[in-house]
Amino acid sequence: VRIADLLTPCLLVDVDVLERNLAEMASFFADRPCGLRPHFKAHKCVEIARRQREHGIVGVTVQIPYEAVVLAEAGFDDVLVANQVVGRRRIEQVAAAASRCRVTVAVDSDETIDALAGLDVGILIEVNVGLVRGGAPPDRAAGLADRAHGLGLEVRGVQGYEGHVVGLADAAARREGAERSMAILLDVAPQVGGGIVSAGGTGTYDVTGAIPGITEVQAGSYVLMDTAYSALGLPFGEALSCLATVTTVAERHYVVDAGLKALATDHGPPVLASDAPGSVRFLSDEHATIGLGPDDRPPAPGDTVRLRPSHVDPTVALHDRLYAVREGEVLEVWTVHRGWGPLVRR
Amino acid sequence: VRIADLLTPCLLVDVDVLERNLAEMASFFADRPCGLRPHFKAHKCVEIARRQREHGIVGVTVQIPYEAVVLAEAGFDDVLVANQVVGRRRIEQVAAAASRCRVTVAVDSDETIDALAGLDVGILIEVNVGLVRGGAPPDRAAGLADRAHGLGLEVRGVQGYEGHVVGLADAAARREGAERSMAILLDVAPQVGGGIVSAGGTGTYDVTGAIPGITEVQAGSYVLMDTAYSALGLPFGEALSCLATVTTVAERHYVVDAGLKALATDHGPPVLASDAPGSVRFLSDEHATIGLGPDDRPPAPGDTVRLRPSHVDPTVALHDRLYAVREGEVLEVWTVHRGWGPLVRR
Repeated sequence: VRIADLLTPCLLVDVDVLERNLAEMASFFADRPCGLRPHFKAHKCVEIARRQREHGIVGVTVQIPYEAVVLAEAGFDDVLVANQVVGRRRIEQVAAAASRCRVTVAVDSDETIDALAGLDVGILIEVNVGLVRGGAPPDRAAGLADRAHGLGLEVRGVQGYEGHVVGLADAAARREGAERSMAILLDVAPQVGGGIVSAGGTGTYDVTGAIPGITEVQAGSYVLMDTAYSALGLPFGEALSCLATVTTVAERHYVVDAGLKALATDHGPPVLASDAPGSVRFLSDEHATIGLGPDDRPPAPGDTVRLRPSHVDPTVALHDRLYAVREGEVLEVWTVHRGWGPLVRR
Repeated sequence: VRIADLLTPCLLVDVDVLERNLAEMASFFADRPCGLRPHFKAHKCVEIARRQREHGIVGVTVQIPYEAVVLAEAGFDDVLVANQVVGRRRIEQVAAAASRCRVTVAVDSDETIDALAGLDVGILIEVNVGLVRGGAPPDRAAGLADRAHGLGLEVRGVQGYEGHVVGLADAAARREGAERSMAILLDVAPQVGGGIVSAGGTGTYDVTGAIPGITEVQAGSYVLMDTAYSALGLPFGEALSCLATVTTVAERHYVVDAGLKALATDHGPPVLASDAPGSVRFLSDEHATIGLGPDDRPPAPGDTVRLRPSHVDPTVALHDRLYAVREGEVLEVWTVHRGWGPLVRR
C-alpha cells in the first residue's frame, strides 16, 4: 500500500525518525545507573513499545489499567501504572494485568492503598513534587508506606512527576524546576524504602535522568514528538504526522479533511508540514481551514498535505491505527489501544 | 447495570432529557414547510438517529462518507453528505452507501463534481454564505450545476452553512447573520434548481427554519447539547455528561480520572455538574484537576462526579459507547461509530 492510497485523515509514523529517536534516547541511558521506563500513554501502540524494549528499557509506564492489560497480554513483563487506581472496574483490570506480569501501582492515600489490598501487585508512593495533581504531601509518604506494608503490599519505592516544568520553554528554568522537584522526592525516598525512584518526562529526561538517586525516567513523547516538545530544542525529531486531503480551494484559503476529531488542539492548532502552502487558521469537527498568503501557491482538491500535531498523546487517542511509513510506502499498520477497556461485564 | 458499576471515564445520556429535546425540536418543525435533517456528526449513534426519525425527519445529514455507510447499513433511506468528498477511499464509501439508500453529496468545485461521476448519487451545490470553509462563490453555483448535469448527476439543490454565526452569544446578531447568509443562498437557489435548500444548525434552527424557501435544517447538537450551546439560552437541555471517579484529594484540589482523552476542550474545559464541589482548573491526558474553595466540601477517593462537555461532537468522537441512563440505571449501551471507517483494503 502506498501512502496515496490511504483513507484520510490518518496518522503516519516515519519509521526512520522513530528509530533515530529510539537510538538517541537509548544512547543517553546506555551508561547510566538510571533506566528508561517509557510511557505507553504517548502512543498506546504495542509495536512501538516492542521497539522501545529492543533498545533497552527497565519496564513500561502506563497511565490507566487498561494499558497494563494490553501490555501484559502482549508479553511485557514489568508494567508501572503511574497513577492512582480506584473503582471496582479499574481494580479488576489491574488484577487481570497482574495475573500475567509484574505490576506496580502508584498510590497517594489510604483509599488508593486499601483498593489494592489482596492483589499481587507492588506499590510506589506517589509524592507531590509541585504539579497540582496526584501525589501525597511529602510528610505523608512514610505513613502510607507503613499502611501498605501492613496490608501485605510490597513497597517498591517512590514516584514524583515534575509535570509543571517539563514544558517550560527556558531550559535553565526547566532544569532548576526538575532539580527542585527531585530534591523533594529524594528526600522522601529513604523513608519509604524499596529502591525505586521513578520520575521524569520528555522535557526533563536529561536532567532528571542524570540526578544521582533517580532510578528510572518515564518519558513517552520523545518517540513520536509533537510541535510543543519540538519547541524545546530536544534531540528528537517529529515522527508523527496527520495526512489530510484538500477538499475545497478558495481565493485566500483552502480546506482539508482533518479537524478536531483527528487532531488534539489543547496545545494549540496543528502546524502544516513545510512543503504545504499557507497556515492553519482554525479547526472544525472534520476540517482544518488554512489561510493562503499572496505568495502561496494554492493546492488543488484531492492533493494531500501533512499536519504536525501539537500534542501527541491526545492526538493518537483519536485514532484506531498508526501507519508506519518510509518513502511513500506503508510498511505496517499498527493498532492504537485507545479507550479504557472493553464493555462493562453484566 | 447501575451507573455506579461503570468503568470511568464514560459518557452518560440522560434519556429523559434526550426525549424532551427530540420533542421540542419536533414541535418546532411540526407545522412548517421546512423539515429537519438532523446532523449525525453530533452523536454518531444509530439509536439516537432512530429516535430522531421517530419524531419526524426528512433524512439525515452526515459529515463524512463513513457515517453514510453506517446509516445505510442501519436501514436509513435518505442521507446527505454535507461536505465535499474527494479521494478514492472516500468515494468508495459514498458508492457503498449509495448502493443501499438515496445519497446526496455536497460539491463546490469542478473536482468535487468530477469525483462523483458515474455514481448513483445526487448533488447539492454548496455555496459559501460567510463561513471561511467550504462552498463555492455564489456566482459559480449555476456553472457548477451545469457541469453536474453534463456528467449525469441529478442536481437536487443548494446548501449553505452559516457556521460563522450559529455560536454568536447575541440572539439578534445570530438572527441577523443567519438571515444575511440565507439571503445569499436563496438568491442562488433558482439558478441551480432541484428544489432543496439545506442549511442551519442548532444555534439558528428557529431563524433559518422559519425563512420561506429554506426546505431543511441540519441541526445536530440540540439532541445532546453542551455548555457552549447552553450559553445561548436555547430550549434544549444537556443530555450528555461524562462520569469520572475521584482519584486524589488534596487540601485545595482534587483529581478525577477524565482528561483530554475523554473530553474535548476546543470550546474550553468541561464544567462540573452542580452537585460536585469546586471548579475545573486544567486537564491532563487522563485527569482533570479541580480546585476547591474554602467553603467546598471535599469529596473522597472513589466518589464519582459528572462533567458537562463544552463541545459535544469532538467529545463523543473520543468514546466507543454511550450509556443511556435513567435514575441511576443503565438502560442501554449504544455504539459510537467513531473514526473514518475500516482499514484500507489491500
